Amino acid sequence: MEDEVRARVGLTAVAPPSDQWLGKMVARLGAAPVWEALVSGAPPPTGGRTLSEGLLRQWRRWAERSGEVAPDRLLDTSAEAGVRFVAPGDPEWPGRLDELPGGRLCYGLWVRGRGDLRNLCLRSVSVVGSRTATSYGLHVASELSYDLAGRSFTVVSGGAYGIDGAAHRAAHAAGSTVVVLACGLDVDYPRGHAGLFADLVAKGVLVSEWPLGHTPRNPDFLVRNRLIAALTPGTVVVEAGRRSGALNTATHATDLNRVLMAVPGPVTSLMSVGCHRLLREGRATCVTRADEVVELIVPLGEADPEETGPLEVPADLDRGTAQVLAAVTRQGVGPATVAANSTGNMESTMRALGMLAAAGLVERCAAGWRRPARRPKGRSVR
Amino acid sequence: MEDEVRARVGLTAVAPPSDQWLGKMVARLGAAPVWEALVSGAPPPTGGRTLSEGLLRQWRRWAERSGEVAPDRLLDTSAEAGVRFVAPGDPEWPGRLDELPGGRLCYGLWVRGRGDLRNLCLRSVSVVGSRTATSYGLHVASELSYDLAGRSFTVVSGGAYGIDGAAHRAAHAAGSTVVVLACGLDVDYPRGHAGLFADLVAKGVLVSEWPLGHTPRNPDFLVRNRLIAALTPGTVVVEAGRRSGALNTATHATDLNRVLMAVPGPVTSLMSVGCHRLLREGRATCVTRADEVVELIVPLGEADPEETGPLEVPADLDRGTAQVLAAVTRQGVGPATVAANSTGNMESTMRALGMLAAAGLVERCAAGWRRPARRPKGRSVR
Repeated sequence: MEDEVRARVGLTAVAPPSDQWLGKMVARLGAAPVWEALVSGAPPPTGGRTLSEGLLRQWRRWAERSGEVAPDRLLDTSAEAGVRFVAPGDPEWPGRLDELPGGRLCYGLWVRGRGDLRNLCLRSVSVVGSRTATSYGLHVASELSYDLAGRSFTVVSGGAYGIDGAAHRAAHAAGSTVVVLACGLDVDYPRGHAGLFADLVAKGVLVSEWPLGHTPRNPDFLVRNRLIAALTPGTVVVEAGRRSGALNTATHATDLNRVLMAVPGPVTSLMSVGCHRLLREGRATCVTRADEVVELIVPLGEADPEETGPLEVPADLDRGTAQVLAAVTRQGVGPATVAANSTGNMESTMRALGMLAAAGLVERCAAGWRRPARRPKGRSVR
Repeated sequence: MEDEVRARVGLTAVAPPSDQWLGKMVARLGAAPVWEALVSGAPPPTGGRTLSEGLLRQWRRWAERSGEVAPDRLLDTSAEAGVRFVAPGDPEWPGRLDELPGGRLCYGLWVRGRGDLRNLCLRSVSVVGSRTATSYGLHVASELSYDLAGRSFTVVSGGAYGIDGAAHRAAHAAGSTVVVLACGLDVDYPRGHAGLFADLVAKGVLVSEWPLGHTPRNPDFLVRNRLIAALTPGTVVVEAGRRSGALNTATHATDLNRVLMAVPGPVTSLMSVGCHRLLREGRATCVTRADEVVELIVPLGEADPEETGPLEVPADLDRGTAQVLAAVTRQGVGPATVAANSTGNMESTMRALGMLAAAGLVERCAAGWRRPARRPKGRSVR
């Protein structure tokens, strides 16, 4: 266990995510020296700069709490609950999170579920909206998410009732989802979604910046929203009232240069007021179905349908993954056959298939795995 | 009767409006020499340029028809039917039509109704949409048009069933409307709107580029659409299917540098597909209520509410109109009192009141006329 990772584990337990001062310190120095200073009772490692009394008081509070945190034990307890820690440098770390500015840094993510977070996010869309959605909003969120999942896009959203829940439920039926929570992964919040979360981890993942046991407070949801925006190349707002939290996610998406999209609705519906304002102010692009979302987030040319043509292996795949891809046919083939015809190793074959599915190069079918009929010409792997 | 006007009357009876070749000829030479050449059987006055056989054949057809047309008689017959002719230079000619390019020229308009076309158009919005509107679209068109009329905006639209009819009916309840038809003003098309048209002329006007007796053919509606776009500073598309004629009006609005607006609707509704495409492609701005429309078409600063403050008389009004405005109070006053306290002449006072109302400086009330509580700081009189 690296010191840097251990330090980041510790930070998630003593300091709030997205603290401007701490985030910038970690971005500049790395987590290890910051954590070291906290646990040793040293002053903040700010190179002797004079600090306000407020910041020093905060530092002392964090230092005090750090005495009660043992990162290794926290990792063990989490592992027993099926929760792993993913930090920068980890193969599962989603590269897009590196684009978060220092003041909004994510120290690391607690992750639960069978999916691979990085692979899931490679080809993904955030679908967000109001908790108090209308039947119209729930219908649109479901259709959109189901169709996106059917095109091998992972749906990323929060865990709330309303649009979030509808998006996850529908996407899960056709693919995988990433649920970004503002609570510890053993705290099912909202309680009524405990069963849904338990289902989703079979293919997707739950993620949180907070360690086990954390009960969410209101500001946590706003802090969490920046991750929903950051994890994907684009965010779709399905229904949002005048002051919906989804508009906060929308602002993060804009700040992070992500594609922002909004679904229109009846002008007579208060639940569409936020979406219409985003459209009216030119901040979001109008989308009405999955096609239009894909067209906006997949770089030009890649969305062209290519129903026929030879099965190509992109040049930038590593040898093992390329072998696995070459073993998948258009008609579909079982994973054991794929493994036998490629790496010979079931576990690495499954990992490669997950990666290839995330990039849209293979998809699940009745027989096991197949090349998709409509295949993007390239992949947006970043 | 000027030769130029008489020639334009004649042209409306022998040639289709918006003919590129003829329009450009009239724009360059004026209507009189063109008409003179037609009735005298002379060749087209194109300065000796060699013309295609097709154009010459067309010219001969028009010349033949011109022999059967007597402009003075046509004006008399029309006058008996309560229809007047308005051409460029006429006090009732809407200045915005001068912005039509030569290839899309309007020779003149046949007008019926108590309203003054120019005054009505000074402060106006076009509200267009599908004939096969949904109950949602009809509701929105009605609300929007009623609210716009309540703010002294004239609603301009076609005469069709669906959105057009709903817009006129609602606007008529609170103000005036301009109906732009593709038929002669004695041909009530569609027949079912005969009663509506008869009602609307009490305050507004019906206008057409075609003389009495003309029965509309399909292409006429498209030609007519450019006038709906040209007469107002902005067009709102309320509901439009994938191939709705309202999208043709939208294109004219864009071509003429008018403000184009679209009302969103449920993405599940085929009748909103056209609106959503306009929004998605960034051609139209999303509007959901009258406020937002006004904000877009009234130049910045003019839409600010100014509930109190002294009653000002704008400096650019002529003396008579300024006197009439000064005689109108915030509480409201009858027109006879206004006349007595200003010009002393009832007819010129009524004309001035109509002009001031069109500019939003006075409005009708129970007592007669009053200064509006929410008064635009300036007027967009063009």
